[in-house]
Amino acid sequence: MRQLEEQCAENIFMAPRYAPSLRSRLAPLLLFLQLGFIVIYAFYTEIQSGVKVDGKTLSNIYPVFQDVNVMVILGFGFLGTFLVRYSFSASAFNLLVAVMATQWAIILNGIEPYNRKIRLDLRSLVDAEMCTASALISIGAVLGKTNPVHLILISLLEVFGFILNKWVIQTLLGTLPLNSIMLLHIFGAFFGLTLTWVLYRKGSEQRFEKEKSDRKTGLFSMLGTLFIWMFWPSFNSILVDDRIPVRKLEAVCSTYLALAVSAVTAAAVSLLSSPKGKLNLTHMQSCILAGGVAVGVSISVVHQPWEAMIIGFIAAVVSTIGHRYLKIHMLLAFQCHDTCAVLSTHGLPGLLGWLAHLILLIKDCDDHTTAIRFAVFHICTLLSTIALSLSMGLITGLLLKWNFLRPPQDRKCFDDQAFWEFPHVTLCK
Amino acid sequence: MRQLEEQCAENIFMAPRYAPSLRSRLAPLLLFLQLGFIVIYAFYTEIQSGVKVDGKTLSNIYPVFQDVNVMVILGFGFLGTFLVRYSFSASAFNLLVAVMATQWAIILNGIEPYNRKIRLDLRSLVDAEMCTASALISIGAVLGKTNPVHLILISLLEVFGFILNKWVIQTLLGTLPLNSIMLLHIFGAFFGLTLTWVLYRKGSEQRFEKEKSDRKTGLFSMLGTLFIWMFWPSFNSILVDDRIPVRKLEAVCSTYLALAVSAVTAAAVSLLSSPKGKLNLTHMQSCILAGGVAVGVSISVVHQPWEAMIIGFIAAVVSTIGHRYLKIHMLLAFQCHDTCAVLSTHGLPGLLGWLAHLILLIKDCDDHTTAIRFAVFHICTLLSTIALSLSMGLITGLLLKWNFLRPPQDRKCFDDQAFWEFPHVTLCK
Amino acid sequence: MRQLEEQCAENIFMAPRYAPSLRSRLAPLLLFLQLGFIVIYAFYTEIQSGVKVDGKTLSNIYPVFQDVNVMVILGFGFLGTFLVRYSFSASAFNLLVAVMATQWAIILNGIEPYNRKIRLDLRSLVDAEMCTASALISIGAVLGKTNPVHLILISLLEVFGFILNKWVIQTLLGTLPLNSIMLLHIFGAFFGLTLTWVLYRKGSEQRFEKEKSDRKTGLFSMLGTLFIWMFWPSFNSILVDDRIPVRKLEAVCSTYLALAVSAVTAAAVSLLSSPKGKLNLTHMQSCILAGGVAVGVSISVVHQPWEAMIIGFIAAVVSTIGHRYLKIHMLLAFQCHDTCAVLSTHGLPGLLGWLAHLILLIKDCDDHTTAIRFAVFHICTLLSTIALSLSMGLITGLLLKWNFLRPPQDRKCFDDQAFWEFPHVTLCK
Repeated sequence: MRQLEEQCAENIFMAPRYAPSLRSRLAPLLLFLQLGFIVIYAFYTEIQSGVKVDGKTLSNIYPVFQDVNVMVILGFGFLGTFLVRYSFSASAFNLLVAVMATQWAIILNGIEPYNRKIRLDLRSLVDAEMCTASALISIGAVLGKTNPVHLILISLLEVFGFILNKWVIQTLLGTLPLNSIMLLHIFGAFFGLTLTWVLYRKGSEQRFEKEKSDRKTGLFSMLGTLFIWMFWPSFNSILVDDRIPVRKLEAVCSTYLALAVSAVTAAAVSLLSSPKGKLNLTHMQSCILAGGVAVGVSISVVHQPWEAMIIGFIAAVVSTIGHRYLKIHMLLAFQCHDTCAVLSTHGLPGLLGWLAHLILLIKDCDDHTTAIRFAVFHICTLLSTIALSLSMGLITGLLLKWNFLRPPQDRKCFDDQAFWEFPHVTLCK
Repeated sequence: MRQLEEQCAENIFMAPRYAPSLRSRLAPLLLFLQLGFIVIYAFYTEIQSGVKVDGKTLSNIYPVFQDVNVMVILGFGFLGTFLVRYSFSASAFNLLVAVMATQWAIILNGIEPYNRKIRLDLRSLVDAEMCTASALISIGAVLGKTNPVHLILISLLEVFGFILNKWVIQTLLGTLPLNSIMLLHIFGAFFGLTLTWVLYRKGSEQRFEKEKSDRKTGLFSMLGTLFIWMFWPSFNSILVDDRIPVRKLEAVCSTYLALAVSAVTAAAVSLLSSPKGKLNLTHMQSCILAGGVAVGVSISVVHQPWEAMIIGFIAAVVSTIGHRYLKIHMLLAFQCHDTCAVLSTHGLPGLLGWLAHLILLIKDCDDHTTAIRFAVFHICTLLSTIALSLSMGLITGLLLKWNFLRPPQDRKCFDDQAFWEFPHVTLCK
Repeated sequence: MRQLEEQCAENIFMAPRYAPSLRSRLAPLLLFLQLGFIVIYAFYTEIQSGVKVDGKTLSNIYPVFQDVNVMVILGFGFLGTFLVRYSFSASAFNLLVAVMATQWAIILNGIEPYNRKIRLDLRSLVDAEMCTASALISIGAVLGKTNPVHLILISLLEVFGFILNKWVIQTLLGTLPLNSIMLLHIFGAFFGLTLTWVLYRKGSEQRFEKEKSDRKTGLFSMLGTLFIWMFWPSFNSILVDDRIPVRKLEAVCSTYLALAVSAVTAAAVSLLSSPKGKLNLTHMQSCILAGGVAVGVSISVVHQPWEAMIIGFIAAVVSTIGHRYLKIHMLLAFQCHDTCAVLSTHGLPGLLGWLAHLILLIKDCDDHTTAIRFAVFHICTLLSTIALSLSMGLITGLLLKWNFLRPPQDRKCFDDQAFWEFPHVTLCK
């Protein structure tokens, strides 16, 4: 009871200390960026009058676009609500970051040397939401330990880095747009990991006092997870070239089966690796997605359902083991506190997908020379992605250490109280 | 602790007092209306055999219809669950009202002088759900202070008034169907405001003791909001004439961008206007939708993305400021208790959208005479809408004051206990 | 307070007793089945290269497939979360069971005498998810009283029985695929009822101590319900032959109207049958779906909206009365504990739909001979379905009584604690 009273007291007396930070920095930043975006859109964008988007009419692509939209806004937003005292922030900051990053990505994606105007249609919205997904993955690693000013800056820099990498590997290595965009899982994860490593605080080996979940927030998080899980076939198939219609069907079926296998495998490995032989809800929320990540990265070469299923199986094994053992090891050995375990959820399955891509690519080649040439290009693609994600993560991290941005104190981490008014809530009851 | 015990005692001893009210009035009303609807449908409706609906096949329009359906049933339903003790009522009564209003709107929309039969196809369902949305907005203003009998009557009268207004302005002023339907925000808001003003109870300046939210209900409300936010491009584009295909794309992109700008702006203004420099979750739930409202009202003349963005920006500023200062002012000065702040969420952004429509209309005109003619017609449209919404709201309000309908006592407001059995729930723990 | 402490103590000391059961049985079962499925898929499936699926292109059927997917994964998953201490299990085991059953159903559906390969496309995924829905209905009857090993076995046997029945009535009685699949509600309900009757435990007449819900889990359950309710038109129309386009529209409109009437009627009957004149949330969650079930079973002969509305009306009356009086009667008289009341939600409305099918079939016949012939075939279809569901349910039940599978003790029923790690949760607070 006394603990409760202290908590109430804390809520009343301590929270205002953070108030100035948000108002004087976040509001001007948001207004400045938003007005800037409006000016850029006013002068440089135009809505494409072409009816067909890659051979598809608007009504064909629109429902799939909405699926991706639901994944980005609702899926990622509610995935982060498992933190019991940080659920307002997790869902609302996700929305803020997503809309800023999407507007920004449309601009960056639209810059072309021979075209003064930025194209605006459903395809450019989808491309932009993919870049946004990459930024939201990065944010998963630092969730709860940053303020919204940080989150906005992270997302802008991450999207910039990701689009730079896309441009580099498309221009220099001739990678197809689909393949370069699907590296978003690898880029996002390693950017986020570098960032959280740079931002490490002394004493974080101990659990943050407010980093916990309860039954109900576990269910909200499950809701976000399920939307991501269900609509992942849309995510992986939307950019697949549909001039050969069976490719689209292959992408949908492969992703569906890989996700199904992942769900089963994650449950089995979670049980086997548990000292008490019980399931872990976090595994059922993150690792069931591993198959979607891995198959996504290799989607352009996966043709058979069983290939997707094997990729999904291995991805779930790696992801669940990573979740069980690697997360704590990363913290203790590398001082890298990874809130949403993006290494195990997106990083490792992404690398595995990249490897599967390489193997399937070589398998399909007829002669050795082509195979080696493809392999070298494919390896360079990964090296560029890793190099750019690590260096951009490092730069972003160092920028965020700047005191002017006022990171939250340790005891204020994972706490809505620092950012939200709770006027009519009986929180202390 | 004693407070808790008293609450329990109250739950056990007081609740049954309301029981007779619901059974003897709500059940017969529902059965009477429903059986009446079945009879009308049996004799006067027919499913259209035309494959094409405005140039679109069924499979093209169906996913967009489902998006609108999700907004009406799930979006509005969960938006109201923020009231911690009223969440069952908010979600379930919303469903009840929605299905009654939709069936009623199909009938009213289908009455045509030269056609004995009421058309039934996806287009008529969509039209009816738009009218339903208008009724659900009105109900937002009186949520928690009425019983379900009231809600059913309100929705039927509101839909009648709205369709009457649609008919008046289409017939007398030649307004296009799209433009007249999109006035639903203005009609719904002002109808609701008049209603809650007539139904004002003495002492409502003090907060109702049960009108509060908590963290979890805040999240449920966020869920409803996000579904409305995400699917709003479907809402605004579904009725856009797609014989010129680029119009549809413009509607989707404009709405998306207006919503994005609204989300950012609402956060910034919420921070700036907060004495403690903190965000307010209610603003992040209502005001981020303002851009969708405003662009919806002016959707037929918005062609450029930046026009939509500026409209979204101003709408969010107006809506957030209205939320922060106007809601309490309305209560104290005009004795108008607006539960869901429909004035700021739908009313003001709707008026702003109407103004934007007027300005863009005049801008596109070549000569003065046409411009003035358009302006006069446009102003008459608004006047008719306001006049009809206010008078219908007044009539409905006076009808509801009739004692036979047994409005809940003040202490029973915002309380599920009056309407729901809680057999196996340990509520008092 | 002491009760609370005891609960905590129980959580700490008792839970591990169940640990070995899950690890040593569930994990090998999952891995064995999953690896087996991968092998079968590797050798026997192929993705169909045909662009058209029953005359529809991929992009036309895909959004409707996703609606069905949302119903199966999210709808059924969250429908079961009303159990306050069993919500993790309800949502996550639903996912596990769904993906296992779908993979299994694709294999069984694909076995054809003259085709060595199993077809894999969106149509086969949809067919498989329908079979999965049937298994998930069965599981609703035993929810909370079984461990996940049971659930997996139940789903595999149920899907086998359901597909066997489909094959029998299609081959021997010439039933159309659409009609045979739509019997899933009847098959699932009676399979589940037999199962729960065989698995009856002494003392279950008393309520299980942990079988209860609270406000928040009621809302989660409402969320699942609403998704099932909203997307039901997709469920009923996806398999309708669209060579006659108006059939699809009829299916969508009929289902929508039947659901609307069900919602209103369920509320009215719930009120009328309540001793205190109050609504019951369980009725608003189960009985509003009755119209969808009944119209689904008779979808191939329902042509007029009012037919669907009358079916929806009677279905909701039967379902609500069943819910109010039959559930407890089944328990006391037949020792049949039906957790989610699948008899009233799917069984009785399914039978009613079958009867409506029969009546409408006869009404449409011109001469007596054909009518009688149709009627006999139709009755045989039902008899086969009931016989197979009862016998498969019996066999499954007897298998599950085998001690090796370790059913949970009574006091561990409806409790996540037996299956889930709660590492960072402060459950006892």
